Order: sequence, then structure tokens, then C-alpha cells
Amino acid sequence: MNTFGRIFRIHIFGESHGNFVGLTVDGCPPGIPIKIEDFKEDLLRRKSGAKGTTPRQEDDIPEIINGVHKNFSTGAPITILFKNKNTRSSDYDFKHHPRPGHADFVASEKYKSFNDDRGGGHFSGRLTLGLVAAGVIAKKIIPEIKITAKLIEAGGQTNISEVVDEAVKNGNSVGGIIECSAKNVPVGLGEPFFDSVESLISHAVFSIPGIKGIEFGSGFNAAKMKGSEHNDLIIDNNGKTKTNNSGGINGGITNGNEILFRTVVKPTSSIAIQQETFNFTSGKTEPLKIKGRHDACFALRVPVIIEAVTACVLADLNMINKTWI
Amino acid sequence: MNTFGRIFRIHIFGESHGNFVGLTVDGCPPGIPIKIEDFKEDLLRRKSGAKGTTPRQEDDIPEIINGVHKNFSTGAPITILFKNKNTRSSDYDFKHHPRPGHADFVASEKYKSFNDDRGGGHFSGRLTLGLVAAGVIAKKIIPEIKITAKLIEAGGQTNISEVVDEAVKNGNSVGGIIECSAKNVPVGLGEPFFDSVESLISHAVFSIPGIKGIEFGSGFNAAKMKGSEHNDLIIDNNGKTKTNNSGGINGGITNGNEILFRTVVKPTSSIAIQQETFNFTSGKTEPLKIKGRHDACFALRVPVIIEAVTACVLADLNMINKTWI
Amino acid sequence: MNTFGRIFRIHIFGESHGNFVGLTVDGCPPGIPIKIEDFKEDLLRRKSGAKGTTPRQEDDIPEIINGVHKNFSTGAPITILFKNKNTRSSDYDFKHHPRPGHADFVASEKYKSFNDDRGGGHFSGRLTLGLVAAGVIAKKIIPEIKITAKLIEAGGQTNISEVVDEAVKNGNSVGGIIECSAKNVPVGLGEPFFDSVESLISHAVFSIPGIKGIEFGSGFNAAKMKGSEHNDLIIDNNGKTKTNNSGGINGGITNGNEILFRTVVKPTSSIAIQQETFNFTSGKTEPLKIKGRHDACFALRVPVIIEAVTACVLADLNMINKTWI
Amino acid sequence: MNTFGRIFRIHIFGESHGNFVGLTVDGCPPGIPIKIEDFKEDLLRRKSGAKGTTPRQEDDIPEIINGVHKNFSTGAPITILFKNKNTRSSDYDFKHHPRPGHADFVASEKYKSFNDDRGGGHFSGRLTLGLVAAGVIAKKIIPEIKITAKLIEAGGQTNISEVVDEAVKNGNSVGGIIECSAKNVPVGLGEPFFDSVESLISHAVFSIPGIKGIEFGSGFNAAKMKGSEHNDLIIDNNGKTKTNNSGGINGGITNGNEILFRTVVKPTSSIAIQQETFNFTSGKTEPLKIKGRHDACFALRVPVIIEAVTACVLADLNMINKTWI
Repeated sequence: MNTFGRIFRIHIFGESHGNFVGLTVDGCPPGIPIKIEDFKEDLLRRKSGAKGTTPRQEDDIPEIINGVHKNFSTGAPITILFKNKNTRSSDYDFKHHPRPGHADFVASEKYKSFNDDRGGGHFSGRLTLGLVAAGVIAKKIIPEIKITAKLIEAGGQTNISEVVDEAVKNGNSVGGIIECSAKNVPVGLGEPFFDSVESLISHAVFSIPGIKGIEFGSGFNAAKMKGSEHNDLIIDNNGKTKTNNSGGINGGITNGNEILFRTVVKPTSSIAIQQETFNFTSGKTEPLKIKGRHDACFALRVPVIIEAVTACVLADLNMINKTWI
Repeated sequence: MNTFGRIFRIHIFGESHGNFVGLTVDGCPPGIPIKIEDFKEDLLRRKSGAKGTTPRQEDDIPEIINGVHKNFSTGAPITILFKNKNTRSSDYDFKHHPRPGHADFVASEKYKSFNDDRGGGHFSGRLTLGLVAAGVIAKKIIPEIKITAKLIEAGGQTNISEVVDEAVKNGNSVGGIIECSAKNVPVGLGEPFFDSVESLISHAVFSIPGIKGIEFGSGFNAAKMKGSEHNDLIIDNNGKTKTNNSGGINGGITNGNEILFRTVVKPTSSIAIQQETFNFTSGKTEPLKIKGRHDACFALRVPVIIEAVTACVLADLNMINKTWI
Repeated sequence: MNTFGRIFRIHIFGESHGNFVGLTVDGCPPGIPIKIEDFKEDLLRRKSGAKGTTPRQEDDIPEIINGVHKNFSTGAPITILFKNKNTRSSDYDFKHHPRPGHADFVASEKYKSFNDDRGGGHFSGRLTLGLVAAGVIAKKIIPEIKITAKLIEAGGQTNISEVVDEAVKNGNSVGGIIECSAKNVPVGLGEPFFDSVESLISHAVFSIPGIKGIEFGSGFNAAKMKGSEHNDLIIDNNGKTKTNNSGGINGGITNGNEILFRTVVKPTSSIAIQQETFNFTSGKTEPLKIKGRHDACFALRVPVIIEAVTACVLADLNMINKTWI
Repeated sequence: MNTFGRIFRIHIFGESHGNFVGLTVDGCPPGIPIKIEDFKEDLLRRKSGAKGTTPRQEDDIPEIINGVHKNFSTGAPITILFKNKNTRSSDYDFKHHPRPGHADFVASEKYKSFNDDRGGGHFSGRLTLGLVAAGVIAKKIIPEIKITAKLIEAGGQTNISEVVDEAVKNGNSVGGIIECSAKNVPVGLGEPFFDSVESLISHAVFSIPGIKGIEFGSGFNAAKMKGSEHNDLIIDNNGKTKTNNSGGINGGITNGNEILFRTVVKPTSSIAIQQETFNFTSGKTEPLKIKGRHDACFALRVPVIIEAVTACVLADLNMINKTWI
């Protein structure tokens, strides 16, 4: 199911080497100002081109085909398309000699011979264009909330530039850690249990290809702490806390402090280095050398996607909270 | 929304100090053998009583009120109740002097004066009884899959016994890390993007009170690895891999290797040590001393809950996969 | 799936001859006043006892087991149980000699031998107790909207008393037509297409056992009308119309005029008259004589159920509309 | 919410006078043969052009932009677009002088000034193109089930040709009744209560603009029948019944007999005859004369849409039934 959200709902579709990837946003209130230019900044942050990112260049110009009229949302579903131009179908048969770390093997098991495996098909990172576009709209629905994500570590280093240089040079790749903060969040978003803020954000974040983990506030460090250290003491009548080990969330519900979480992106699976892996035609492991254009550190492009899905979750929860007014 | 799942759907309800907590399972196939005794083992693992867990003792005997006939599921919704017996309403006003780490503050902001705050109300860990019961049923739907979770670290130690002793002695608490494995999983469960196995498992896991993070396979360590180290090379025609950094999942879909994830539980928020925190009546921080019966390390009781929600996710995905047969 | 609604969600469960039938309402705002006595009037209207209704007598006293504290909803799920007391399991094997008009045949095909067929099991009209209880709560969420349903015809007669007398005398049964009106509805509830008010009301109404049709405003008569007769001319600046062929709904959205629809209830399937129908054991048609206690005109008990599901739909839509505020 | 279905899910989007209308189908199994030509016949049946239908001519050529590869569904979402070419924006201000029978008034109340009211905007019957396209795919998923809908009455006549001629001549319009049959349906689709076949079909049917009522089997006539007449006696071991007053459904579940229902379409709201209706600018009723191209009997175009949504419901239920295998 390529759908996420309860009131602010996003549907993504498309394939890497088809004509378009895109999304439909349903449930966006009427009267939200939406112009093509508004998408530019966030799409640019996701775009490849910088050192460590794939040389595949796409225009990434959104085409809004419905739901926006005279630069405002109408209340009807908003569909946005992105044309795929720079596709170059692989000359390699990944169905029979699946690339390690990729979905080639599972896709051909699940979808059989019908899988569109050109450039990763529906599994492609290009579908995150839709997520970023949804995030641009979501941010406009909750303009008072400031969401910021940044890469804070790659390849085990905080000086990220060098480690990326080296990966590029060696035809290898590195992973990274992204930290995301949401400030000025009202108290009371989310619910205990299945609609906890952590449940919804993690659900959305793990929808991004390549994510391996997420932690809120103190995160994995909490296992080393005592209750007396971990508990966030409240210090004023807005509920401000002295520490923020909770990551801004108690009982699944925002407590008005900064929402803070970190997420880890694996090293890009496509590398130029030869790999010894099973060939289902020959029935034995054989060297595989992947051609094509790849990111040495696609974690560089992920922060804006993390922001986007976080905005989608918070916009949805903010709208849901109004049902009780 | 206290509901989770698409075909195998669970609904939880109840409060800590009401008469019952419970759950309804909808979508369970007819013909699944279900007896009261089947719940015993898993409920016992969740139960308090051992060192480091709360002395509040409940029978935790499930009452199946519908959906099971002659010891088999009928295909109708299954509702199970657990009577709350051992309730002891607090003599402390948490609304005005909220306990650090707890949901007291957010609950009174979100639900206003209508919140049932006796013993944590709907936020109570007692609702996880419903999760465990759902897990017992889910495990029966996918009997071939073996799911095992265990506490592998607490308070920063792998020798867990001592660290718990010390916390009990000091009226303090410690967190822990739980590792969960699912073996013998068929290839092809899950979908790319929003219904990725990671998205659904993390969604369910973060529904459990006190979880601060989750990581699959290599997890946060992936940020320190190179693609050439991280990629799992396939070594046979079942898709078995040499390493398991993917945690058994590629592109959101199970690859037939062991699903492996770790999750972190925070130290119990209720501690006997006095805490200096804001009192909304006096308008200043004041010492708070929490009475009552608490777990020094409630992480000890969480592994079976992690297993349960994992089983619910996999049972649901397994049923969904059949729609394409 | 025994669930209905998006924000105000109801889950029903139970069997005719189990210990309980019940429901959980999720998404009810906190602060709605709810007392046991509030359910009395509507439950009494649904109750059997009057001429033409089954002599099976149940107390129908709701037991609110969670979600209400000090006579107000808390914001947590509300679960209500109704004890089944007056059960009398049939001595007849409906699995092999299915009753005409009943679900016996389909249930044994769908749920196989696992179906709980005592008294109709999960198919029982007793589950509508949950619908009526949900309706009582829903009506409190939208107190300004006045919903009224009444039986306007039975057995082809508007003088209903006589036709029911005759059916009782002959061991036969009759159907009827119920008209439902909702007054003082705000403009703007519902959406075009799948969340049209007609879609949602009809979905809910056909969930009630025995409903064979529904028509809004002009209904089936519209097929005989010309556009110039059917169009409702607007006569004031509140959108009041001269006629109400639209039944208060345009383009799926309420227009502020009275919502008006009629629905038809079939004659009770259980009759005392002998019926010649297939016996799957003998492999031929054989006389079937149904013992037990039945309604000669269960349509008499349906109006309050129609009101209830209508209230659930309108309460849900009213809450959803606030998400755009 | 412009989404319908649980496993086979359809999402529709677009506006009458935007660039495109379209749909996304999610959950379609891989391996379903899909070619552009397959849509031709059903789209042609929906198309205008015949006597009594609007002279607005559109190519209605579907553009499949993803989810189909080498003429087979891939398992990924399928998005289909239809270009709007023949748009002619109205020179009349419907916001202030709303057309009787149309959504003009409710749309401007609900979406305020942001509503895209060109040609009806999102309310347009052109969105049913998406429904028809979804139906073409759904029919392929359940090829054994034969679904046929036809107009059986218009303007109160079964000789439909004359009554349409007269409506065209007078600048007026007529409604009609459509009968839909589904043959060769397996026993066991659907569920009691909220997922009853009647609930789901009626939900989908009322999503089609202009529908005023629906009745299954005996329908409204059931109110005039006795139980002894209405009950369908089973006559063979496949569950075949002597009569079909149930319309092929008992307890919400298909019984293997023909599913049979009728639905009524109102007369087209747009007529050439002058209408005296409220003008919100002048604050009084004033004559309104609607220009433009309209159907005198759009019921002529609806049968294929009824078939389509019925196919979507049955395909979805058929897939859901497999989850219990």
C-alpha cells in the first residue's frame, strides 16, 4: 500500500525508468498557497550533483496536474508529476545475478517475472521526490513548526567531506547519521499506543530506502542510564524540561519541547568494487561488477526527505487534533 | 486510534484502574485452535513478580468473550478481557505536580480534566496485556516462523542481575536493550515504502510504552561501514547471505534470512528517589516523591511484548501476501 | 472488518448466544457526558416485547467497561458490553438444513465447521445493540442535529397495526419502510465521490441485517421526473430550497436542508410456516419448520438503529470537517 | 478521501477543466495483462456522443504512466491519466448564482473562494473515467464473474428512445433506472455488518454523481411481501435458490446466486430551460439560464460505471477471501 496518513494522506507512484514518478496528496485543506517555485529549494537539497552523489541529472521540475487553482489548494486531491528524462536502462541482468544490498532478489521472488527492474523500478529512490513534494505542502500547513534535519556523521566521521572523497576515489560508499529537530511543536499531538508520534514518524522514516535505525531523544543511550538521570524534570508552566531525553514526546504525545531524533542511512549498495555473489543462472557465486551512476554517500541527500516525512506526520496529527475542538 | 493492522487487526482498550483491559482481534481466520491455556506462557513472561519488577500482582487470566467456539476461532472478531483486581488508587495529585518521564503533563493538556489518571489510565503498561494476547494468536497463524526476543543488556551491562539489584537497592531504575529474531520467514513479505517490514515493525514496537529506538541488522553501526562491508553477498539459491547487515529485509521486503532487530527501553520513569520538578499549583519546582509499586527494570518484561507485535505484523503480511495467489 | 468510521470509529463484536455482545468506540472526544441512563431510551426502542416482536427478553443494560470516568468520556476508547442472558440454543441443525433467508448456508461455506451457529452467532441482530449504543454517543457529539426515523409502512400498509396482527396470527412475517430525517445539519459535511454522505450513510445502513434498499430525497421516483421538476430551486441566502428532491445533499455534501432518506427492511426470515428447502445431508429438498422466538415484523425495531448509524456518520463527518479549520 | 477499497484500492483525482483526470490503482496483483486497447470498449460505452448525451467530445485515451511493464501489471501502483482537451470555461458566475441540482452552493460554502469551479471542478462527472478504467482492471482480476448493467427505464418509460428525444427537444432532462447483474460469483464474498456486499457496493455506487437510490433483489418491494413469499428456498447442493429476493446475498455474504441490484439516476441537473433561483449577489431569486453542452439523459452513460465499481468491490473481496486460505 503506497499510502500514508489519516487525514493528510499521501499516495506515491512511479518507477525509476518509467515516464514519471509522482504523488497525490489528499486531505490538504483549501487555501494553502502553492506555487511551483515553492518546491524548488527542498527538491534542490534532495537533488544529486554535489560531490558524493550520482551524476544522473534530472530537472526535477514538479508538474502540478490538479488540486491547485490560482496558486491555492482547492481542497481536492493534489497530484504532482516529475518527468523522468535521464534514464539509461542497464545492460546487466539483475534478475539472475542480483546486486547485494539491493531489492533485486526479493523483487523477482515477490513480483516474479512481472517486476519492472529497469533502474530499480518502483523500488527506486526517485520515488522520494514525491515525499519531498508532500513535505513542502505539509510544512505550509504547519508553518509555525520548524523542522530541520542535517547529516551529522558519515563513514564514522563528523568531518564528512574527507570520508566521502575517499569513498568516491575507491569506488566504494559510506553511510551516515541524520539528526532531525522539530521546534515550536504544540503540546498534545499524537496518541498513546498505535498513533504515538514515535510510531508514526518511524513508520514514515523507514519508508525511505536505506534507513537502518531510528532513535528518539536519549535513544540507545537510554539503556546505559538510570531513571534519575533519564527523567526530564519540568521547569516551567509551559512544560519546558531541563533535559530532553524524551525527545519531546511522552506517552506518544508531544510535550512542547523540541522533537529530536536521529536516523541512520546505510552505505549506498551500488559500488564500483567487484563483489562475489550468487548467480541464479549458473547456480554458483560469481564476480559482479555494477556499472552505472551512483551516489558514494546518498545519506547526503536524505535530510530533506526526513524533514518531509516528519512534516507530513505532524501536519496530519495537527489536523486530527482539531477534530476534538 | 487504538487499532493496528490491515487484515489481522487488533484493537486495544482499557485503563489501568478500570475494571478491565482488553483487546479485539479482527480478521483472524476461522479454524485457529485457541484455548485459555495457550496464553499462559507468554502472559507469565510479561507478568511482574521477578526481581526488578513491580510487586503489583494480577492474575492476568484472559477471558475470551467472543470469536472462539469449541476451542477454535470462528472467523468473527475475538474479544479478550483481563480483569484489573489489584488496583490501588494513588493519593497523589499528578495533574498538578506531574511525574517526570510520565505522560501526566501531556495527558492533562490533551484530555483536560477528563483524563482518567488513576494509575496512568489508558497510558498504562497494563494495555500491553492485549498486545501479548494478540501475539499469542498471531503466532498460531504463522506457526512456521520462530520469533524470539531477549534482553541482552541493562544499565549498560550484559550481566544484568547485578545492575538490577543495585537499582532496586537505590530506589532507582535502569533501561535495557532487547534483541528480536524471526527465523524461517518466507521471502516476499512486506512492500517497498509505507508497508515496508521495517515501517510496520517499528510502528508496532514504538506503540509499546518506553521504547526509545529501534535498529535493523547493522543498525546504527551502518554509519561507520563501507558499502563493500555492508552489502550482504548471496551464497545460495535460497537467497541465503554471508552476512546479515540487512536484518533479513531488502527494499522493505523479507529476503528469507533471519529478521533481526534491536530496540531500547528507557529506565522506568517511576523511581523512589525524590525529584525536583514543576508544581503547576504553586507555580514553582518542588520536590516530588513517588509512592507506589514500580519496576526497577521494566525492560525485563518487554521481550515477550516485542515478540507479540512482531508476530502481529508478520501474520498480517503473510495473510496479505495470499491475496495475490 | 467489523469497524466503521474514520475519526469517530466503531468496532462491534459478539455472538447471539455467547456471553456478551458489545462495541468499542474510538475517537470520541473527551468531555462528552455519558451515563448508563442515557442509553435507556434508545435501547428500549430497539428492544423486543411489543406486539410483532420476539418474546426473547433481554435486560439490555449496557456495562461501560472503559473510556468513561466520572460520567464523562476521557478521550480513550469506550467499550460497552451487553450480557446475553436469555439464550436457548436451538435443537435444530441449521448447518445441514439451512433456513431460507438466513445466513446459515453462506456461513457454513465461508467459516466451514468453525462457524458458531448458535442463534445466528455473529450474524445475530443482537449485534445491533452495539450500533444503538454508538448512536447514543454520536448524538451527543452533534447535539444540534435532530435525527428521527420512523416506520412509515409495513406489509404494504400504512396502518401498520393490522398487518402485524395478521402476520403474528399466521406465523408469517412482514417487511417495512423506514423514513429517516436529520434536521439542522450544517452545510458542508461530506465530500464528492467516496466520502459522499450518501456513500457513508448507505454503507452504514446496509450493515444492519435485513436492509434491502435505500433512497435519498426523490429516490426511485427520480427516474420518472424531468430535470425541471427535480431541480431544487434555492430560495434564500442560507441555501434553503423550495423542494427537497436532493434529500439535503448535493455533490455528496450536505446543503443545509433536511437530510431525508427511506430504507426498506425485508420480512423476518424466521417464520413458523413450514418451508420446503434443501437438506444437505439427505441431498434433497425437505420440509423445514423453524421453532424458536421470532419477530413477526422486526422492521418495528429498526428505526432507532437507522438513527444510530446516521448519527455515527454525521458525527464523524462533523469532526472531520474541523480538520480544515 | 478519494480512496476506496482495502486491498484493491483506487484513488481518483483531477478536475473537469484541469489538464488531466486520472486514477491510481494500488494492490493490483502482478501478472494481470493490461493493454491500452483493453480500455477502449468500456470507455466508449461511457463516452458521450449518442443521442441524449453531451456534444462535448473527448478522446478519452488512457495514458498508463506507471505500474504496467511489457503489457502486464508489475505489482506496483498503476496510474492512468486522461487528458482534458475539449474544455470551454463558462462565462457564467455559478458561485453567486448557483445552478439548482448542482454542487455550486455547497462547494463554495465548503471550499470557500478556493474551489475550482470551472466546469464543475473536482465534482465533474469526468472523474468517472477513472472509475471505468479501474473497473477494466478489476474485471481482469475476476474474469470468471460476469457483470452486466443496463438502463431499463428512463423518464418512467421502458421505451427509452422517445422519452430522450422529447427531453432533448424541450431542453429538459430525464432520469433512469439501471439494473446490474453479476453472475458466476463464488459463495462467501463479503462479511456480516460493515463489510457486507451491500454496504460496499452501495458505498461505491453512491460515489457516482447523480445516484439517488439502490435496492438489492426484491428491494423496496420487500416491504409489501410476507416472509413466506420473500424467503428464497434452496433447491440444490450448490445453494441455488428457487427465487432470488435476496439478490444473491445473505447476511452480507454472496450465496452463489446472481447478484442483482437496481439503482436510480436523477435527471441531469443542467437544463436549457430557465430556472428561478437565488442569486447571492442580488439577494433575491432571479432567472438563471444555463448555457453549455449537457446530457439530456446522462443515465445512458452510467451502466458501465456501475459495472466498474461493482467489479472493484468484488475483485477486492475476492482477494481478501484468499487471506484465509
